[in-house]
Amino acid sequence: MSSDVENNKPLWNNPNGLKPSGPLGRDVLAVERQKASFQVDVMTDYLHGGKEIAERHRQIAAVLASDEKLCKDDWHFQSRETKFKGAMMRINHLITLKKSHGWSEKEFWIAMEVLDEFGPTCLHSTMFIPTLEGQCDDEQRAEWLPLALNFNIIGCYAQTELGHGSNVQGLETTATYLPESQQFELHSPSLTSSKWWIGGLGRTATHAIVMARLLTKGKDFGPHPFFVPIRSTENHHTFKGVTVGDIGPKGCYQTVDNGFMLFDHYRIPRKNLLRRFCQVSADGTYTRSLSEKLSYGTLVFIRSVIVSTAYRSLARAATVATRYSAVRRQFVTREASQDDPFAPVTEHVETAVIDYPIQQSRLLVQIARAYALHFTGLAMDDMYTSLVSNLANNDVSNLAETHATSAGLKSLTTDMTMAGMEDMKRACGGHGLSKVSGLVEACQDYSPQVTYEGENYLMNQQTVRYLVKTYGDMARGPATANTRTVEYLRAATKPKYLQNRWKVSKAEDLCKDSQALAHLLAAFEQRAAALVAALAQDLATKNSTWNKSLVRIHRTAKAHCQLVMVQNFSRALNLPAEHPAAAPTPMIKDVLFKLGCLFALSMMVENIGEFLESGFMSIAQAQLVRTASDDVVAQLRPDAIALVDAFDFSDYHLNSALGRYDGNVYETMVQWVSRNPLNLEVNSPVIDGYEQFYKPMIQGPRPTGTETLQARL
Amino acid sequence: MSSDVENNKPLWNNPNGLKPSGPLGRDVLAVERQKASFQVDVMTDYLHGGKEIAERHRQIAAVLASDEKLCKDDWHFQSRETKFKGAMMRINHLITLKKSHGWSEKEFWIAMEVLDEFGPTCLHSTMFIPTLEGQCDDEQRAEWLPLALNFNIIGCYAQTELGHGSNVQGLETTATYLPESQQFELHSPSLTSSKWWIGGLGRTATHAIVMARLLTKGKDFGPHPFFVPIRSTENHHTFKGVTVGDIGPKGCYQTVDNGFMLFDHYRIPRKNLLRRFCQVSADGTYTRSLSEKLSYGTLVFIRSVIVSTAYRSLARAATVATRYSAVRRQFVTREASQDDPFAPVTEHVETAVIDYPIQQSRLLVQIARAYALHFTGLAMDDMYTSLVSNLANNDVSNLAETHATSAGLKSLTTDMTMAGMEDMKRACGGHGLSKVSGLVEACQDYSPQVTYEGENYLMNQQTVRYLVKTYGDMARGPATANTRTVEYLRAATKPKYLQNRWKVSKAEDLCKDSQALAHLLAAFEQRAAALVAALAQDLATKNSTWNKSLVRIHRTAKAHCQLVMVQNFSRALNLPAEHPAAAPTPMIKDVLFKLGCLFALSMMVENIGEFLESGFMSIAQAQLVRTASDDVVAQLRPDAIALVDAFDFSDYHLNSALGRYDGNVYETMVQWVSRNPLNLEVNSPVIDGYEQFYKPMIQGPRPTGTETLQARL
Repeated sequence: MSSDVENNKPLWNNPNGLKPSGPLGRDVLAVERQKASFQVDVMTDYLHGGKEIAERHRQIAAVLASDEKLCKDDWHFQSRETKFKGAMMRINHLITLKKSHGWSEKEFWIAMEVLDEFGPTCLHSTMFIPTLEGQCDDEQRAEWLPLALNFNIIGCYAQTELGHGSNVQGLETTATYLPESQQFELHSPSLTSSKWWIGGLGRTATHAIVMARLLTKGKDFGPHPFFVPIRSTENHHTFKGVTVGDIGPKGCYQTVDNGFMLFDHYRIPRKNLLRRFCQVSADGTYTRSLSEKLSYGTLVFIRSVIVSTAYRSLARAATVATRYSAVRRQFVTREASQDDPFAPVTEHVETAVIDYPIQQSRLLVQIARAYALHFTGLAMDDMYTSLVSNLANNDVSNLAETHATSAGLKSLTTDMTMAGMEDMKRACGGHGLSKVSGLVEACQDYSPQVTYEGENYLMNQQTVRYLVKTYGDMARGPATANTRTVEYLRAATKPKYLQNRWKVSKAEDLCKDSQALAHLLAAFEQRAAALVAALAQDLATKNSTWNKSLVRIHRTAKAHCQLVMVQNFSRALNLPAEHPAAAPTPMIKDVLFKLGCLFALSMMVENIGEFLESGFMSIAQAQLVRTASDDVVAQLRPDAIALVDAFDFSDYHLNSALGRYDGNVYETMVQWVSRNPLNLEVNSPVIDGYEQFYKPMIQGPRPTGTETLQARL
Repeated sequence: MSSDVENNKPLWNNPNGLKPSGPLGRDVLAVERQKASFQVDVMTDYLHGGKEIAERHRQIAAVLASDEKLCKDDWHFQSRETKFKGAMMRINHLITLKKSHGWSEKEFWIAMEVLDEFGPTCLHSTMFIPTLEGQCDDEQRAEWLPLALNFNIIGCYAQTELGHGSNVQGLETTATYLPESQQFELHSPSLTSSKWWIGGLGRTATHAIVMARLLTKGKDFGPHPFFVPIRSTENHHTFKGVTVGDIGPKGCYQTVDNGFMLFDHYRIPRKNLLRRFCQVSADGTYTRSLSEKLSYGTLVFIRSVIVSTAYRSLARAATVATRYSAVRRQFVTREASQDDPFAPVTEHVETAVIDYPIQQSRLLVQIARAYALHFTGLAMDDMYTSLVSNLANNDVSNLAETHATSAGLKSLTTDMTMAGMEDMKRACGGHGLSKVSGLVEACQDYSPQVTYEGENYLMNQQTVRYLVKTYGDMARGPATANTRTVEYLRAATKPKYLQNRWKVSKAEDLCKDSQALAHLLAAFEQRAAALVAALAQDLATKNSTWNKSLVRIHRTAKAHCQLVMVQNFSRALNLPAEHPAAAPTPMIKDVLFKLGCLFALSMMVENIGEFLESGFMSIAQAQLVRTASDDVVAQLRPDAIALVDAFDFSDYHLNSALGRYDGNVYETMVQWVSRNPLNLEVNSPVIDGYEQFYKPMIQGPRPTGTETLQARL
């Protein structure tokens, strides 16, 4: 049986030219688009940070979509091995395009997003190059970085080991300095020390940044990064002393060769220790040249990238589910269909799924979250940029806050995005599970983000350590450090803080404008501050220990980071008009405020117990929250399609039969399925295996009816 | 590139015989097993309903594990096409084993569970045969059922269409009666009428039960089931007038050929309408012979199977995650390791992940849920059995309650199981994402259950309709219908109901015994009753409409069904000792009560807002709930491994490197990975594609350093 589409003719492709029975998707979406309260391109330009950038995105997407080598038509039907070889070809081709079109690095990243394939060189771009940039000294950068940027060497980042993930200090691989030959000897002392999960290592990389314990003069200085050649740039053979392979299929990343690696007394030159922060002299003396803290920049960089890219992942899933929910119809419910021009009361046209309030709520909550993730991504980028410029001046004053914020937001935004993508896939009903939905692999490929670069539960501890410390500092007196995101904690150091009550008396107070968002923000502040203050007090009075409080710590981090996201949403919308690039124009401001309210309300509904427990919110107000949430969903309903259109994903990017811009869902599904290998001539007229396995059963001896029936009764 | 493991020699398999660095998994698990408060086999026998049944399960598992044809070693590394052909072979072989071992149908199902593969004939067993049993008249059953049971015909169940899932009444396929030839003519009038997603239809089935609108004498009688030959039993060719194919890869069921089908004026004999409930006479007169309600039995059957099999799916995921969490170590935390004999304070042995309270809580909550699902599965089976015996006497008195309960429990148990399995996969950290965890495909293959046989949000409406109606009946006077699960609603018809307060004053009241479980039950009753009563009143007073209440309906169904699960747990443990098969022995009663409390507490913590909003629980009591939850987790910790061992999964069944009984996690991972196709000799020394795609980049012109660096800065 052929494992892939070759030159086989499809057996079937809608021979009778049948049409869908209900209103056509294109007509439905056209009507939906007329309902919008704003112009889609205004919102798109705003989200992209300007018309020119938005246009540039579209141009790059168009280049890829029209390139035959990058055609995605068969992707959903390929085996891992075929996909992997295809990914090799495509990354090679994309690099050619980069050169021929003169794309900047930033534009190349846009192209990678549109291609939407985690290929074998992803980690080369996202980890290997940033590490060279951040951890090399000038001489090392000048030697290696140009080769890496030009793909003359292909790198990976080898930190995780078979038995060691989040705890970098527990890594076992050693790099022992040998003064006689001025070399480091890399060695894997145990099975659990095998490098594992390293993207691009399995069959691709020529070089690796290896994190190994630096041993010199009998002393263990802990894990350090080394630049390690592993395959020849002449013939790609693995060097002696290095054992490398692919770790096999995963529930994600079919086109990445995540690999393992063991060293057997493998030597590299002394100069291959990355030297920005420390050196080992010829005689083996270890010296630290700069504070280790300055190296946290790389860590924060990766996390801030994770935070700021979450938006596009959730936006994409929401786009598919929302468009398909407008096209898809199930059951006839007059009340739900009352505004639907395609469902006159005289006919039995089914109700569009998007017109059921519970489906609307699911869709719009995720749309609101995607917008919130966008604003938080921008804020995280700003924080990171400011950190980098400080670190360049050896100033670590905003490191603690940025580190804590990036850790907690990494946890919250990836949890939120993963849950939201899964819900959007599920909101597509059965077809969401088909690969042609474009959401199956999108969800799978997003799933590692909740675990890698710091498991989400662990990350939260870093955030809460900072919150508890800051609260303690504030309780003792005016703090001096940068505390933009945590300034709200100061109120909780005041004596009568827990007697505060929420000033909201009707659902309309929570629905639409700047004032509503301010009310919501106040409730998030009180809830988070109450949790931090209680925890800090219990720890200070030895009423509890850190270890025993882990469940509570997780809740506390979540409460704080949800607040930060509401803050970011609110700050973006309240930017004064003199920020022309960033401030929203009047046309889109109204819908953005509603989204901000829905975003906050949706998290409030999910955690309503904590708001009640803090004493700030009354039982009657909890009911207002639920009512306001339903109301704002209804208000946003007419804008649903426009809000996802504004994300501006191309059909090429989405590669989804359900989420197409033109709404031709069913026609596309039938057309795509004809390319399925199991339907090709090679399997015609009967499937390979029929003679061996089915025929003997079907044509085997027949029972006498009574015998079998009796056995069963 | 070969897509599968053939006779290629592995490139690598731990040549230096390395060992893991920490305490060995087998030693760790041995110590864990000594901690248990009960004998594992006593619990296993209890769960299986007796020692003999438990033993029979083990014998069948042993037959499969020792059979070379059923070896699972390469499963994690195969392409869809290879897997699919393998599945054809295996089902054929399993049927041979059934005959040679003389297995009953029930024993054959045990074997299918152990094989753990959704094969191309799954729907033959789970839908086709039950439909023949439930919907045929005696003559039809005598003719078709023996052939189906003997696999002389292979069937599928063709209901869902491209544009129609949950709404059976919206199906478009027609079956028009032609009196002149005494035939039905099946026809697909539109693209959306294509049958779609039909398991086993793509390339396997010879026959289908087709749900099509019955048209006779110009009248449309709505969807009815027909017995339809689609492929020749002589040569497996598809019959003219039927177009069939496979719908392509999915995010689940790699080894099922879910198919599509279109009819072009395809004729079948009149006698092929399933006739238990209605007939069409030779002249085309339609008569209904029995109430349509009696046919709901099949619907309830499928849902009750879904409810009662959820337990094993969650139990399996909990087994893998719990064992691996005992073996896996991350970070050194003295306080967490204080009871760990492998981590003396003098050494830097990392802390076992299971010793962190938050990980314990995650694991034990899912273990408790698996036990709860077991008890609810038994209760659902009982309800279904009682329904069937009533329906056999044309008695529909318990139909409404059973239908409503099966619908709501289908929704709750599948949501609970899916979320729990995903959390257990995630609790394995990065390795959970590797297919060798055994959880990747387990989660994927479970995922359709939340959607099929009634999307979970829809199901909940059926439950709440029944609750609202029953509440109304009760408010009007003493109800006469069977209302075992909903008797608690009666209290809410009393005037001062909302003034009830919870009688719990310390965390210990909620932790361990029959009394604690009774307290928890009371809170679940009050919360559910308050939601039902408020909804019923709002609907009755036209304060709201059904459509506008959909979000609330979803919450109400969940509250009711969570209560039913707590009821079932409590009833099982409080069975008097004169039920020797079902009542727990004193040895296991204590741990079971703790599990019951944890189960209830875990759902309470997740929904604490609703308990507070009903006014029954105070803010101080909410704090007790959180404390009690942490306490009972700590009490259950020593039993964690024994509790999952008691589920008694064989290693063959789990096919997981992480969840092995012997704890040899790392050795197994390394050994399995050597079978990965990308590591075989065919790809040695360099990967296929290197010459074309990597070499031109790596050996392409090198940049002058300054140029590229400048471009980047």
